[in-house]
Amino acid sequence: MVMTREFDAWARDIALSTERSLEALLPPPAGEPKRLHDAMRYATLGGGKRVRPMLAHAAGETTGAPVDRVRIVAAAVEIIHAYSLAHDDLPCMDNDVLRRGKPTVHVEFDEATALLAGDALQALAFELMAVHRLADPPDQQLKMLQIFSHACGSHGMAGGQAIDLANVGRQITLPELEYMHILKTGALIRASVLLGAMCGAALPEEPAARLDHYGKCVGLAFQVVDDILDCESNTEQLGKTAGKDQDANKPTYVSLMGLAGAKAFARELLQDALSALAGFGPEAVRLRQLAEFIVHRQH
Amino acid sequence: MVMTREFDAWARDIALSTERSLEALLPPPAGEPKRLHDAMRYATLGGGKRVRPMLAHAAGETTGAPVDRVRIVAAAVEIIHAYSLAHDDLPCMDNDVLRRGKPTVHVEFDEATALLAGDALQALAFELMAVHRLADPPDQQLKMLQIFSHACGSHGMAGGQAIDLANVGRQITLPELEYMHILKTGALIRASVLLGAMCGAALPEEPAARLDHYGKCVGLAFQVVDDILDCESNTEQLGKTAGKDQDANKPTYVSLMGLAGAKAFARELLQDALSALAGFGPEAVRLRQLAEFIVHRQH
Repeated sequence: MVMTREFDAWARDIALSTERSLEALLPPPAGEPKRLHDAMRYATLGGGKRVRPMLAHAAGETTGAPVDRVRIVAAAVEIIHAYSLAHDDLPCMDNDVLRRGKPTVHVEFDEATALLAGDALQALAFELMAVHRLADPPDQQLKMLQIFSHACGSHGMAGGQAIDLANVGRQITLPELEYMHILKTGALIRASVLLGAMCGAALPEEPAARLDHYGKCVGLAFQVVDDILDCESNTEQLGKTAGKDQDANKPTYVSLMGLAGAKAFARELLQDALSALAGFGPEAVRLRQLAEFIVHRQH
Repeated sequence: MVMTREFDAWARDIALSTERSLEALLPPPAGEPKRLHDAMRYATLGGGKRVRPMLAHAAGETTGAPVDRVRIVAAAVEIIHAYSLAHDDLPCMDNDVLRRGKPTVHVEFDEATALLAGDALQALAFELMAVHRLADPPDQQLKMLQIFSHACGSHGMAGGQAIDLANVGRQITLPELEYMHILKTGALIRASVLLGAMCGAALPEEPAARLDHYGKCVGLAFQVVDDILDCESNTEQLGKTAGKDQDANKPTYVSLMGLAGAKAFARELLQDALSALAGFGPEAVRLRQLAEFIVHRQH
């Protein structure tokens, strides 16, 4: 499958509409506490690939989900992603100064503000998922909140970050690396797919499981490609510090499999993701295109 | 009203049952990522006055809420409280080394683990509130999640912490101090009262507003008494560093009103809290006793 201009236009459209939703859903910049709200907006607006919102919208298309509902889910998962970056960049974590071509939140503001902005963003994401009607019946929405909160916690994203930290400077195996990534970035990516789909008609167990497997594969592929790009690109292209993982002696797919091995693995994951969608028809075209996009992206 | 042994027994009982629920609801210590789970348990278990759980249970009694449901709410609000302390104690915030008579989380573990443990605890609190059936119909439970997440975010606890930070070393007025505390500690205390009550029969608007006013008064009173104790006690009695606010040049009720003024204000808030409960009968006896307890406590 070849990326088309039509897909590019769709992706651009989602990025724009996500930016607009976030603008409207984040606390207004004028309201008190102003510095905190400024930091929350700085962490979230004006950048990012918006891959998670795209996945939510693409998954929503497979179940005929109303776009207005998916927009809330897309904003919520992106807000969680933004909070995780603000915390991840802190001196006590990755100590990074550059993100999306801009100073990181604690550099632009200060450490305490970056910490609190992340904390408040997490609460805001849950608030959005509780305030807006996202599914019928409301029981389905409670189920969405379960999936969402689980993906953020110690058995999801936060747990993956803890394992990532513990791995620095250690010799780890490929299964250990995979387990870490399945939690660290994979959990929220899978949740983005499932939550987008759950805004629409309820899915039977089997197609839901296939969507989840798709999410698992693209989540891992995303990370493998990140490692490849971190190795091959320079800082300007990435908009964040390149070669950082190697410098930090962090295990990566490239360091464990070699560059060619990592590229072959990314292709394998792409095939696996596409196979998981075999039972779906044209309503899953965006999910298929997104899998290609995630594996073939250049930054 | 005089504190009775009977109230003491009830309070001890709530503290014990909260500890037991938290034990069971937190990730087990053996599961991976172990260090993160250990830190989450360390931050939450084995200490604390458990005032928020007591308020949730006392409020639940006013609406005949099933105790099993209130236990989940009590655990969730206490988990949020524990996460806020773990983050508040970090070097970039209050930089405190002692809490509840033990080393703070980042001292016992490390900064990154304290940060992630706090993040994961916040997610866990929301997960508990979404996984367990807490109210009928489920719409009421979504409403509870709205109140809960709002109380945690930038218009609640996290916002109050940001204002607190901005106030250090500044001359502020009494209304500014009050506004900060209404967010910083008040928001979660009010949520504890409302959420406990919402586990039971739905409350009409007027008594709900009175319960909320009660929560606002005891939340403020709690802080005023904290400032009084911080001024009058020593570190051993408090289990946390005493005199710290004065040392940090933080505005307190004592520094703005004087010791006698702060004590008179605490008594006023107590009367206001009790008046808010005037329309309730004997089902609000625990809320009345708790207001007395909060104002008359010695640590």
